[in-house]
Amino acid sequence: MTDFASTKALFHLPEGVIYLDGNSLGPLPRAAAARVQHRVQEEWGELLITGWNKAGWMAEPGVLGNRIGRLIGAEPGHVVLGDTLSIKVYQALAAALEMRPERRVILSDSGNFPSDLYMAEGLIKALGRGHELRVVAPQEVAGAITDEVAVTLLTEVDYRTGRLHDMAEITRRAQDAGALTIWDLAHSAGALPVDLVGCGADFAVGCTYKYLNGGPGAPAFIYVAPRHATCAAPALSGWLGHAAPFAFEAAYRPGEGIERMRVGTPPVLAMAALEAALDIWEGVDLTDIRAQSIALGEMFIAEVEVRCPMLTLASPRDPSARGSQVSFQFEHGYAAMQALIAQGVIGDFRAPDLMRFGFAPLYIDTEDVKEAARRLAHVMQNRLWGDPVYQARATVT
Amino acid sequence: MTDFASTKALFHLPEGVIYLDGNSLGPLPRAAAARVQHRVQEEWGELLITGWNKAGWMAEPGVLGNRIGRLIGAEPGHVVLGDTLSIKVYQALAAALEMRPERRVILSDSGNFPSDLYMAEGLIKALGRGHELRVVAPQEVAGAITDEVAVTLLTEVDYRTGRLHDMAEITRRAQDAGALTIWDLAHSAGALPVDLVGCGADFAVGCTYKYLNGGPGAPAFIYVAPRHATCAAPALSGWLGHAAPFAFEAAYRPGEGIERMRVGTPPVLAMAALEAALDIWEGVDLTDIRAQSIALGEMFIAEVEVRCPMLTLASPRDPSARGSQVSFQFEHGYAAMQALIAQGVIGDFRAPDLMRFGFAPLYIDTEDVKEAARRLAHVMQNRLWGDPVYQARATVT
Repeated sequence: MTDFASTKALFHLPEGVIYLDGNSLGPLPRAAAARVQHRVQEEWGELLITGWNKAGWMAEPGVLGNRIGRLIGAEPGHVVLGDTLSIKVYQALAAALEMRPERRVILSDSGNFPSDLYMAEGLIKALGRGHELRVVAPQEVAGAITDEVAVTLLTEVDYRTGRLHDMAEITRRAQDAGALTIWDLAHSAGALPVDLVGCGADFAVGCTYKYLNGGPGAPAFIYVAPRHATCAAPALSGWLGHAAPFAFEAAYRPGEGIERMRVGTPPVLAMAALEAALDIWEGVDLTDIRAQSIALGEMFIAEVEVRCPMLTLASPRDPSARGSQVSFQFEHGYAAMQALIAQGVIGDFRAPDLMRFGFAPLYIDTEDVKEAARRLAHVMQNRLWGDPVYQARATVT
Repeated sequence: MTDFASTKALFHLPEGVIYLDGNSLGPLPRAAAARVQHRVQEEWGELLITGWNKAGWMAEPGVLGNRIGRLIGAEPGHVVLGDTLSIKVYQALAAALEMRPERRVILSDSGNFPSDLYMAEGLIKALGRGHELRVVAPQEVAGAITDEVAVTLLTEVDYRTGRLHDMAEITRRAQDAGALTIWDLAHSAGALPVDLVGCGADFAVGCTYKYLNGGPGAPAFIYVAPRHATCAAPALSGWLGHAAPFAFEAAYRPGEGIERMRVGTPPVLAMAALEAALDIWEGVDLTDIRAQSIALGEMFIAEVEVRCPMLTLASPRDPSARGSQVSFQFEHGYAAMQALIAQGVIGDFRAPDLMRFGFAPLYIDTEDVKEAARRLAHVMQNRLWGDPVYQARATVT
């Protein structure tokens, strides 16, 4: 059993703050500061250009990719880091469409993160071949997988409500219909057990700054199933995805397997923070994470529903049908969340009216959850959201 | 006049090392370590998710983009940071092709950095509309600009030889022929004066880890001329390029001007290092940089040609025709460079036979140049490249 009291001690959490927004940006692993400093001073400062070899910077996207691979049930050697999640979505989608040239539909759902849909839109427009982005309600996805569908593009956990897709079932249905699957694991990696191999997933992408705690702007990752490794064509064919990047050949030759999904120069400083964050995951069992995440979420729902009748649960009530977050609907949700943050409980708000709370067992315990519910009740019972100071909108909400 | 003795003191350079590879990765600005540490501990650690607004992370790609804009002669508000250079090439190229739908040729040259060509190749393949990547010799570019050419894709300074294109002249010719121009400024930004506005350039892209000293894997930048700001279609249409990213709308609407060239979450840790690096550029005059860079390069060529008859100059002899680097051809260049690095002079090697030396006046002075030439002469005169220890190839050369 994972010892969550020990893992909590590995994070820096500001005094008095209960942090329920690790589903957006995970907190600072204590070891990350020294790791980044080492990278800056001892590696960049002392090794200069030779750091690419001597400090292993060039190999790191694969090394760290493998460590993430373990957390999402991927085969070793089939996950690589780099770029942002949006770019990785584009890569996976471009490769998938190329593999199903006779089909024209990208199937997604209205619970997908908008950037995934935007990237699909941009790709379709660029291709100019009459592809269609078909967006259905989440519960209609399974039924909408027809033989027109080239690929499904779905985020396993809905960023607003936490609703969870049945990855195994949808993947099975897609494959029965001859379609490919791309799974966005942004709210899954580090939040719950993911079994890419077991599900037979074709492609997966995700970010590392949420439950994996890699830091703001930490790199994304991509997985390509081994059976597609040699046929997935890299539309973003950058030099580091070339079979021999330092031969500087005139024409592109895709690298071996997942290596071809690398594009440009790796984000060396960011990878140092991520490495420290991934150290914490060594020895952590995702089934323990899942059990504790459910316990925390259930406790929060129960406490809030008793104390805050103005809030309406917007997440699935059945914990097995939701990820590691709980959302409540409230007309004045934005201001209420600002008021709650002023009380030291950080969650976030998603338009138009959702107050969103993430539960990361690595550093959130039952005492935190009870205290967060008490402070939320204080905000609601005293109608603090009515204060104009909490109503002014910031850029990022 | 820029005081280069003062700027040199702002960099950390390892004891005994003369660093002539800032054209590949600039050295550590002393202030960067503390800046990154502050970002990690005080911003990520203490502000957590609120750092996006409170610490200005979200706005930083534009703020730092503007500071780079000053160094490349761009109008304020038309440069933005993000992703890698390869991705930025793709964005510019996709937008340019869209703007010249009736033309099919991308004109580049054999001196371009291979990743630019690879990205063009990938885009052409994805588009499937019969575009052609026409690669001519550098000196044939101007004559090859016909009315078939949709866009020229050129790196101003050749990464191998340092040969400099005439940006103003080629841009004029391209525009006379109805073509667009994309300038890759990887080896120009911070190396010599660039006047995007004066040249009437359409698009420019570049990286920040070479002469700008932003650190390994520091983000790239892109410039779009104001006259194209509303018609350049972002093929990589990510959420942070959306007109209202946090409205989470179902369909993509491109943001204002250069904002639409943002894609995903900005690289927050990397931007802290870059900010410290850009501070050094405040008050630095690029004409001083250019004059001193030429003086250093001329001195190095003279010293090396006297002392090392086995080396053949591979860069243009006319300093006005080359960037801020000097390359020499030598059959055993790889091993000779390894031997030189063992002597404390770091340059680099580019296949098949080029020894490459970059001169960055911010931290390289005339004494460094003379001493580097002396050590190179020691390597050559004693035939140290013959030692097998220097012949073993590493991954990154």
